[in-house]
Amino acid sequence: MAASAGPEIERLIGLLAKLPGMGPRSARRAALALLKRREQLLEPLAASLAETAAKVRSCSVCGAPDTRDPCSICADTGRDGGLICVVEEAGALWAMERSGAFRGKYHVLGGLLSALDGVGPEALRISELIGRAREGAVKEVVLALPATVDGQTTAHYLADRLSGTEVQITSLARGVPVGGELDWLDDGTIVQAMRQRRPA
Amino acid sequence: MAASAGPEIERLIGLLAKLPGMGPRSARRAALALLKRREQLLEPLAASLAETAAKVRSCSVCGAPDTRDPCSICADTGRDGGLICVVEEAGALWAMERSGAFRGKYHVLGGLLSALDGVGPEALRISELIGRAREGAVKEVVLALPATVDGQTTAHYLADRLSGTEVQITSLARGVPVGGELDWLDDGTIVQAMRQRRPA
Repeated sequence: MAASAGPEIERLIGLLAKLPGMGPRSARRAALALLKRREQLLEPLAASLAETAAKVRSCSVCGAPDTRDPCSICADTGRDGGLICVVEEAGALWAMERSGAFRGKYHVLGGLLSALDGVGPEALRISELIGRAREGAVKEVVLALPATVDGQTTAHYLADRLSGTEVQITSLARGVPVGGELDWLDDGTIVQAMRQRRPA
Repeated sequence: MAASAGPEIERLIGLLAKLPGMGPRSARRAALALLKRREQLLEPLAASLAETAAKVRSCSVCGAPDTRDPCSICADTGRDGGLICVVEEAGALWAMERSGAFRGKYHVLGGLLSALDGVGPEALRISELIGRAREGAVKEVVLALPATVDGQTTAHYLADRLSGTEVQITSLARGVPVGGELDWLDDGTIVQAMRQRRPA
């Protein structure tokens, strides 16, 4: 780090380097781009971050970040309140919304159970999910968790905790992704796709 | 883009995607990381950007970004004012400072001449450089510009413009980079390294 860049710029570079996908080098390039494009990028980004920090909160029902509480999805009476899709993070919720495949409500766990990282059930929004499932209006909980060890551990734990309620518990299908060539798929996916094969 | 993320978050994602090395996907991941780490990342980054926007200006002498004007390097009487190192951007200046190889002053052009991108001499801080070179105190101008077509075009143009002054014009040596294996070097570098070979 160059002492000559000044403490303000060094601090900015240090913070930018903490963003996922950024390192010390790309953070310097980003800081440089910000300094070059003051009106188009630096000032709008500063304002946007300040606005986000001031206005965006986690929805008290589902945990998704929004300026409203309950969030716009929880408040949307046009969506099926009998269906809850459980996701790890808001990123998965946004991906699901982009797909347009789901018209129910969501529940954002805020992470996954992980023995290695010491994440237990109390660190996630699991009791809130059980509470919602017990309310009576909920008919089905779709577990849309990643197909990783932690994701599947979490899914099993949730299915176990929810087994005492009346709701049906489902999870996303496993199989060959659209555009996926068998040559490039891992064995686990092929095994799952074969096991869950269906009439063409 | 998910409409459900809300206009504030969408705006933030759009701005983050404009940073170099970021795309729509990584910008979403970055926004998510910011929302998850509110106290450690979102609020400090908002404050740091606001501070940078408010305090950091281009030095009126050399063009480097700094909170002081003249910048800390231009104001440093311990550095050789007879030596000016010309760089494209502040990033190159920071790299030069990290190397510790130069103890003179700098001149930041703010870009390179480019016929393709329509960047002419008036768009760069070239007249300021000529002005500094004419002042009399300057003995040598080191052209530390990239070894690209635009970089070398700019270097030739500057050498031409400076030829009327008393200053000596030099440029960085070309050759095999430290740790560079010949196998992995491009032909142009090997040709230059061979041409500029020196007694071992």
